[in-house]
Amino acid sequence: ALFGQIQTVTLIPGDGIGPEISTAVMKIFEAAKAPIQWEERNVTAIKGPGGRWMIPPEAKESMDKNKIGLKGPLKTPIAAGHPSMNLLLRKTFDLYANVRPCVSIEGYKTPYTDVDLVTIRENTEGEYSGIEHLIVDGVVQSIKLITEEASRRIAEYAFEYARNNQRASVTAVHKANIMRMSDGLFLRKCREVAENYKDVKFTEMYLDTVCLNMVQDPSQFDVLVMPNLYGDILSDLCAGLIGGLGVTPSGNIGANGVAIFESVHGTAPDIAGKDLANPTALLLSAVMMLRHIGLHGHANKIEMACFDTIREKKVLTKDLGGNSKCSEFTADICRRVQDMD
Amino acid sequence: ALFGQIQTVTLIPGDGIGPEISTAVMKIFEAAKAPIQWEERNVTAIKGPGGRWMIPPEAKESMDKNKIGLKGPLKTPIAAGHPSMNLLLRKTFDLYANVRPCVSIEGYKTPYTDVDLVTIRENTEGEYSGIEHLIVDGVVQSIKLITEEASRRIAEYAFEYARNNQRASVTAVHKANIMRMSDGLFLRKCREVAENYKDVKFTEMYLDTVCLNMVQDPSQFDVLVMPNLYGDILSDLCAGLIGGLGVTPSGNIGANGVAIFESVHGTAPDIAGKDLANPTALLLSAVMMLRHIGLHGHANKIEMACFDTIREKKVLTKDLGGNSKCSEFTADICRRVQDMD
Ligand SMILES: CC(C)[C@H](C(=O)O)[C@@H](O)C(=O)O
Ligand SMILES: CC(C)[C@H](C(=O)O)[C@@H](O)C(=O)O
Repeated sequence: ALFGQIQTVTLIPGDGIGPEISTAVMKIFEAAKAPIQWEERNVTAIKGPGGRWMIPPEAKESMDKNKIGLKGPLKTPIAAGHPSMNLLLRKTFDLYANVRPCVSIEGYKTPYTDVDLVTIRENTEGEYSGIEHLIVDGVVQSIKLITEEASRRIAEYAFEYARNNQRASVTAVHKANIMRMSDGLFLRKCREVAENYKDVKFTEMYLDTVCLNMVQDPSQFDVLVMPNLYGDILSDLCAGLIGGLGVTPSGNIGANGVAIFESVHGTAPDIAGKDLANPTALLLSAVMMLRHIGLHGHANKIEMACFDTIREKKVLTKDLGGNSKCSEFTADICRRVQDMD
Repeated sequence: ALFGQIQTVTLIPGDGIGPEISTAVMKIFEAAKAPIQWEERNVTAIKGPGGRWMIPPEAKESMDKNKIGLKGPLKTPIAAGHPSMNLLLRKTFDLYANVRPCVSIEGYKTPYTDVDLVTIRENTEGEYSGIEHLIVDGVVQSIKLITEEASRRIAEYAFEYARNNQRASVTAVHKANIMRMSDGLFLRKCREVAENYKDVKFTEMYLDTVCLNMVQDPSQFDVLVMPNLYGDILSDLCAGLIGGLGVTPSGNIGANGVAIFESVHGTAPDIAGKDLANPTALLLSAVMMLRHIGLHGHANKIEMACFDTIREKKVLTKDLGGNSKCSEFTADICRRVQDMD
């Protein structure tokens, strides 16, 4: 966003608790006077010509125009027969990098106090290719597809990220001892790209070893880059280390600035509409979004206010250990944001 | 082993620290008067007729005869061009179930105190099929193969294990939301088998969710059953929760009683031959072996002695936080075992 300009963002509130946590984020953004205008769109699967599942044209057009989206949780009943809308969104806009910073939150107790890492997941291929076959009765194969192009692209993203965020090292996570060709290709591209970033330390590690070391001492990790499925697993594991999906932000980044930021927790239908939800993950995702569009001042202010509220422990939602409502938690953050002026 | 009979076991000491930790186990077994006779065999990859990699015939014949093996770590240089000998052993003897009990060790501090679970990993197919292709330049595919037979077999193993070990529940771990056909088939077989074990609770969970919940509260898990790669990851993660691969036993189980028990840590070439290695993982794997052949009295005695030594913290190897030698740690366990008589 150019200085003084207002950025329009496509807001996909989502299902279940999605609308109420979206409202919370909008309120806090308003309190912070963030120069953001929201364009709300629904995303429900529709069947396009040829029977292909697609997202509704109004949502697609809005994203095409704005380039930036913020998204709450979407329910994806397997029974509905359509693919996960989360995945369809990533695919539709070629959001090839899934970025999840995991940083210990002061005052929110977990067994780990010094987590400060980022998982960068290849978001378009690998085990998520969707190609599967029945070979003969009782024998099924799924295809993991790894390409040179997507591997180089995600490796470059990871090193650029490290460089731009003052991070010292990038670790490629793989099982090239087993999947020698596919993970081998991924790893080779990481090594090649590493050659162009001599200022960033490069290491490679087996996925199993990373998992083991992660739960023993997560502070040893910095930026981690990996194929799709490994990222799915590792990003959730790391979220667990700092308190779960309720406090972990996430961004899906594509080319030319296109990006959708999302909370990756569920729709929590049991508490939906009851003003009990915790908006932190969506709020911190929105903070990532602010940084993505260059609004660092607003980002820092909102983030600080959110962490202050959590650290003070006076106004917390139930999942965070308190007994306040979503609206009370939101109001506390708004007040802090306003006090900063 | 019939009462009073001596069981011959194929001992594969392995590389690096393998020989010294094997010696430790043999000494402790002797002190415990375990009716075991060792038949030592080397396992180095050799090229058979037709260029296929195979394990040496003397090792194969010994295992064919004895059915039971105990194995230290084997080095597997990718550069050597042959497959991992660990994998080749599993394949050669169709050791379809990889079983890793993870139980918190009293006195050995980790962030978790109440881990008591077992990972049961399908050990023969899945992502480890070894089938990979170059489609066109820069595009590679790896094939994950899931069969009805192997899925049913591992599910049955898991439920039998739960029933025979007084465990209340089995959780199938999967990504059937993404790999609908392959993980779908695996999951379906688990569900079918569950029908025959109404005394054991059955649940299913996504792999990412398991990882997240695991680091937040591992005590909620009991028996977990899953395809090959997921087991590789999750078993290492769980080992990390209780202190790492140095204290975690493992068994590879096949049909008709055939089994190889192994420590799954590395060969630690840096400390090899220096009497510094920790034999616990191999010893606890040998304890699993004793139970497998019905020698529960000896198993309990050795296990108790080992845990007593660790709890007392007076004679520990370096990795366990002490400064004793492998031989001193071993002698302490031997003394305790003898004192129990
Ligand atoms: C919703 C689901 C399809 C998705 C995935 O598997 O990628 C989720 O777990 C995630 O990590 O965003
Ligand atoms: C040695 C290696 C090939 C093996 C695997 O990937 O299965 C190891 O990690 C294990 O878990 O036993």
